[in-house]
Amino acid sequence: MVPTASSFEEADRVTDRLLDELVAIVGSEHLLVDPQLRAGYEVDWTRRFKGTALAVARPGTAAEVASVVAACNRVGVGIVPQGGNTGLVGGAVPRSGELVLSLRRLSRIVEVDEVAGELTAEAGVTLVELHKAAIAAGFGFAIDFAARETATVGGMIATNAGGVHVLHHGSMRAQVLGIEAALADGSVIRRLTGVHKDNTGYHLPSLLAGSEGTLGVITKARLNLIRPVEATGVALLAIGDTDVAVKIVSVARRAGIVLTAAELFFDDGLRMVLEHTRSAPPFPSRHPAYLLIEVESRTDPLADISQLLADRDGIFDAVVSDDSLGRSRLWRLRDGLSEAIGARGVPHKLDVAVPSARLAAFVQRLQRAIDSVSIGARAVIWGHVGDGNLHINVLGLSPEDDRVDDVIMRLTIEMGGSTSGEHGVGIAKTRWVAIDRDPADLAAMLAIKRALDPQGVLNPGVLFDSTLAGMVS
Amino acid sequence: MVPTASSFEEADRVTDRLLDELVAIVGSEHLLVDPQLRAGYEVDWTRRFKGTALAVARPGTAAEVASVVAACNRVGVGIVPQGGNTGLVGGAVPRSGELVLSLRRLSRIVEVDEVAGELTAEAGVTLVELHKAAIAAGFGFAIDFAARETATVGGMIATNAGGVHVLHHGSMRAQVLGIEAALADGSVIRRLTGVHKDNTGYHLPSLLAGSEGTLGVITKARLNLIRPVEATGVALLAIGDTDVAVKIVSVARRAGIVLTAAELFFDDGLRMVLEHTRSAPPFPSRHPAYLLIEVESRTDPLADISQLLADRDGIFDAVVSDDSLGRSRLWRLRDGLSEAIGARGVPHKLDVAVPSARLAAFVQRLQRAIDSVSIGARAVIWGHVGDGNLHINVLGLSPEDDRVDDVIMRLTIEMGGSTSGEHGVGIAKTRWVAIDRDPADLAAMLAIKRALDPQGVLNPGVLFDSTLAGMVS
Repeated sequence: MVPTASSFEEADRVTDRLLDELVAIVGSEHLLVDPQLRAGYEVDWTRRFKGTALAVARPGTAAEVASVVAACNRVGVGIVPQGGNTGLVGGAVPRSGELVLSLRRLSRIVEVDEVAGELTAEAGVTLVELHKAAIAAGFGFAIDFAARETATVGGMIATNAGGVHVLHHGSMRAQVLGIEAALADGSVIRRLTGVHKDNTGYHLPSLLAGSEGTLGVITKARLNLIRPVEATGVALLAIGDTDVAVKIVSVARRAGIVLTAAELFFDDGLRMVLEHTRSAPPFPSRHPAYLLIEVESRTDPLADISQLLADRDGIFDAVVSDDSLGRSRLWRLRDGLSEAIGARGVPHKLDVAVPSARLAAFVQRLQRAIDSVSIGARAVIWGHVGDGNLHINVLGLSPEDDRVDDVIMRLTIEMGGSTSGEHGVGIAKTRWVAIDRDPADLAAMLAIKRALDPQGVLNPGVLFDSTLAGMVS
Repeated sequence: MVPTASSFEEADRVTDRLLDELVAIVGSEHLLVDPQLRAGYEVDWTRRFKGTALAVARPGTAAEVASVVAACNRVGVGIVPQGGNTGLVGGAVPRSGELVLSLRRLSRIVEVDEVAGELTAEAGVTLVELHKAAIAAGFGFAIDFAARETATVGGMIATNAGGVHVLHHGSMRAQVLGIEAALADGSVIRRLTGVHKDNTGYHLPSLLAGSEGTLGVITKARLNLIRPVEATGVALLAIGDTDVAVKIVSVARRAGIVLTAAELFFDDGLRMVLEHTRSAPPFPSRHPAYLLIEVESRTDPLADISQLLADRDGIFDAVVSDDSLGRSRLWRLRDGLSEAIGARGVPHKLDVAVPSARLAAFVQRLQRAIDSVSIGARAVIWGHVGDGNLHINVLGLSPEDDRVDDVIMRLTIEMGGSTSGEHGVGIAKTRWVAIDRDPADLAAMLAIKRALDPQGVLNPGVLFDSTLAGMVS
């Protein structure tokens, strides 16, 4: 149906009334309608995903969040929840005309329970603030990754954030003991008791973790803390190939050595980092691949590392450190990868996971698969070996060209992997998730989506392919 | 409406046709209709919960399970999934006229991945078989509890089983990487890749974990294995009160000492065990309370225990052991509690969890609360300190009298705890869960239930109070 002039006018009236209502809820200084003020909320960290928002609402309390959601739901206006906006799949920026609901003003640590080793934080608390609060209470927090200054609790739960320590502590979902969230109708689910054993029905925190804002807007979370980090040792190993890395991790695990990180990268990536940071190479000669391992021990992490290095075929060289300066020098070689590659263009960032036993075969087949559809496209890879998660950065492609993305995603599915390891689906990967997941899985997910958000106002376009999404609203 | 003779006849015809169909699916030797053959499936381990089944179906494959579920769903006959039937809340025995769907014939370990440290098991594999397979592959399995010979993978996931190691490894939900399950309409959700990082939509394994058979019938699971258990030391501490126990656990956690169990019990319980097993007391004199701790270490668990015992107020005496015989002698004092109390009658077994900081106050107020409604009822308590989970066994009550249950549940809610720690809700606790959980939480759970099981055929009566359950079907 072609809209008539009067239906446009009616839509404008509805929008105006909604904006008035939102101003009444959050105050005019926290409802951003000016395009210049909105701009930072409309484009994500990759620069690949952007859109125009109706406005940006910045509520200051959980009650305001619920009222904002209810108001949008009443008139069917889409809501894009946004935390630190550090996502890489376009899940937290508007597509077209949605309200961006920024949670950053909900930035309080509400309670720290030093007996149980838990804390309650609002959704907008950043990862670095979380670490500070945990350490101040004599504990640590399990999740860590490069965007720690900006990424927020709500976003980390909504995307089930991972990072470098997942092989030891699990992902964000495993840290969440309780949750408070506004559902689409403005009702508020809430259970923040923090008891570790709680079998009183469906575990809504686990369902919301990884739901990418499509089921509810998280306003608070009860989080588990871990024991304080003990003495750690870091080693950078020069190795022959991916298989060696997989074997080292497997051996460490069975030997009871506490590996808190196992990061794989290759010579091309290392060269880029060394050039970009004008650093000296860690080894006198070049090697095909490198594995950075971090070992935690109450007694002697270096002894554990020595045990791992003994009799291990395929390890050509190693640099080991247990002092803070040496450790961070080694970590910088890994942490610098993203920035070094970003300096050479806007890469297609594809994050997949592959079963450990097939990781080496996947890496071997990858460049060949890329070459089959694109001449000159080049993949720089790094990954977390313990959990099979690979970050594939493809240079030499236009932002719109997704033939390479497609061939990589199909290779992942063929090899029994996951088309989204830790970055989520967002709007970037909906078409491949629709292939990756079984039809019955997708139908169950859609049934849950429809049950909790019948109008489809929460993060429309995210998670579900447009052919499926039609079934939602 | 009073049913007429013809409506009875019609119902009988539907039932007969269903039974014929079930025979065609599972074979007549695996459809038990004879009351004597059914009997073992109709009463649970507590002897408090029993009912009559239409029949017991024992499918041999996942495909047969799905066909059985679809057949029942078509005619609206309720299904009660049953694993090892070791539940304590009546969730796996029929209420009246449902089909019991026994998963015990699905007893294969399908695959062991020694590289990733994972395995795929069918729903009917017992916990002890799981441990054997894990150990044979050079790993361990995180969950352990007394019913290990009988409890099955499917039941442990459906109830999110806990046990003694939750404080270190988390509950069953944390071990499940993937799942295969039949939904109410007979469709099969399946994702068994086992990749640790998999963010491709809602995490259905976590949703089914703890759903107590109300959302789907689990047929297979991909489970995470843990590193093999290292040297352990066990200490039995004679202590002054609950507060001391909570403090010891808190100190151990912050010191980085790996506590794999912290079991609290009291002098009344210990006396019952000693009498029942005709054993000598562990200490020359009696003490108010006891804490059994198990410490794991790659180097020297006894050194860790000594560190814990130094300067600790409120510890009166201690027996320590790091050899297998001594450890199991100490464990028997704890493991014997359930049997010793069972020998004195049929206790009301109430399993709650309370935040650590309030555990001592809860224990103090408990007997007084019981006395307020029942003269002569006596609670014997033990629990897992690290996760606040208490097992309250009340003797001296008739099976039907639930005034004491009610007063304990209300005290738990008042103190911010959970009315079901690890045993689940079943049919035993639906009325208290309806108070314990917020109305919005219950509404969200019901919406999910209705979305995935619109006819309400999966485990009717479980989880949802009858006043709510009416909203389901």
